[in-house]
Amino acid sequence: MKKKLRIIKIGGNVIDDAVKLDAFLGDFAQMEGLKILVHGGGKLATQLSKKLGIDPQMVKGRRITSGKDLETVIMVYAGLINKTITGKLQARGCNAMGLSGADANTILAKKRSVRPIDFGWVGDIKAVNETAIHTFLQQQITPVFCSLTHDGKGHLLNTNADTIAAELAIGMSLLYETELIYCFEKKGVLANVADENSVITYIDSARYHELKQQNVIAEGMLPKMENCFYALKNKVSKVVIGNTDVIKNNSEHFTTLTL
Amino acid sequence: MKKKLRIIKIGGNVIDDAVKLDAFLGDFAQMEGLKILVHGGGKLATQLSKKLGIDPQMVKGRRITSGKDLETVIMVYAGLINKTITGKLQARGCNAMGLSGADANTILAKKRSVRPIDFGWVGDIKAVNETAIHTFLQQQITPVFCSLTHDGKGHLLNTNADTIAAELAIGMSLLYETELIYCFEKKGVLANVADENSVITYIDSARYHELKQQNVIAEGMLPKMENCFYALKNKVSKVVIGNTDVIKNNSEHFTTLTL
Repeated sequence: MKKKLRIIKIGGNVIDDAVKLDAFLGDFAQMEGLKILVHGGGKLATQLSKKLGIDPQMVKGRRITSGKDLETVIMVYAGLINKTITGKLQARGCNAMGLSGADANTILAKKRSVRPIDFGWVGDIKAVNETAIHTFLQQQITPVFCSLTHDGKGHLLNTNADTIAAELAIGMSLLYETELIYCFEKKGVLANVADENSVITYIDSARYHELKQQNVIAEGMLPKMENCFYALKNKVSKVVIGNTDVIKNNSEHFTTLTL
Repeated sequence: MKKKLRIIKIGGNVIDDAVKLDAFLGDFAQMEGLKILVHGGGKLATQLSKKLGIDPQMVKGRRITSGKDLETVIMVYAGLINKTITGKLQARGCNAMGLSGADANTILAKKRSVRPIDFGWVGDIKAVNETAIHTFLQQQITPVFCSLTHDGKGHLLNTNADTIAAELAIGMSLLYETELIYCFEKKGVLANVADENSVITYIDSARYHELKQQNVIAEGMLPKMENCFYALKNKVSKVVIGNTDVIKNNSEHFTTLTL
């Protein structure tokens, strides 16, 4: 039987709040079993860009990653955030190792086609190096991924952290029973967005179809849910969505997704 | 017999020059055998600090690492420089993995005592995790270290890159026959600082003593040489000092140091 491996993704709402981040890292360090952390960037990169006078470049209302943006993102994601998290986990007895996709060629990507829109230095994932990551896990190392991949041609690429988490869970499912956990600002998928406690505890493909038709799942949640079902269709055994409490043993409110 | 492992350190004169850096990384990727790269920071961190309006804090003429400086250094050393080098090495077929001392607890340090001078977030190395690094080397991974360590209490520490290279060579000498290679702006230790071609090709302890007495080795070279002999006295088999050509097979001009 395959061993269980959990891939946990955190975003800006945790990273931008030092108190929340510390609390989360304490819980994460205590989680038993094999685990991988994936973090997004939060507001720090935007703040640094502003300070450096780099104007955000937009195309058709969407932010693109210019060369200068990429440098900022590398500094903030792979540098400040990744190493701060790694240092704090080490202090909590978790043998963390910060990684970008370039490190040990862990995540290879392709620069996104410039058509129809040139998003700049943005990558779509081609391959996860499950052998390298497996060896790290065997060494009792907990990989901590920032949201950067590389193209194998010397360029780092800005890559959505939700996607990185999903692709890691899919890639590692060759060797492990993988569970994907998305932590975000809400307790889970809500039946009523205005009611924080209206968490839908269980969603499978049929229910997802219904919820979409009823417009309960819409807007921002749609791409997140698409990521979840994409992972489930590709051998990830379970996806969980909730706030950071979801990794605590006594957590009660969250959404579980299966096929 | 122990396998050979080479630890190569590069500094600002290479890192700050994109053309030189590319040429060096090409040569480094082609070097056969097990190897580790250590890089300093160069001018980028100072430039970023200036742009961010962080005033350098000096105590008795020496730069100290304030909290803001540390953040900048983490962004530039562990982020921009480390990941750029890693990505470029990957493109050249070298399976590089960028690391700070916090990653996989590879280099543990102690924050320097605030007496007699409080240097801020600066670390003195306590332990190199030779087992973890050995396992990476066995995986055909080439570790690329930036000049940051950690204290195991959640803080990263700014640490001299020459010292990191020396301590890595010493630590790894338990498992390997280690050779330490310092690349700097000159071809080697010069008999006459005004003559770039006056390289002293061989220096042992006795000759070092003479050269110091004759004032041939003085000022900036002294701490570098002290680092070298400290490494040699602690089981590093050979130390080489030269410019980046020193790692080429056909290199002729450099200084070799032994006990």
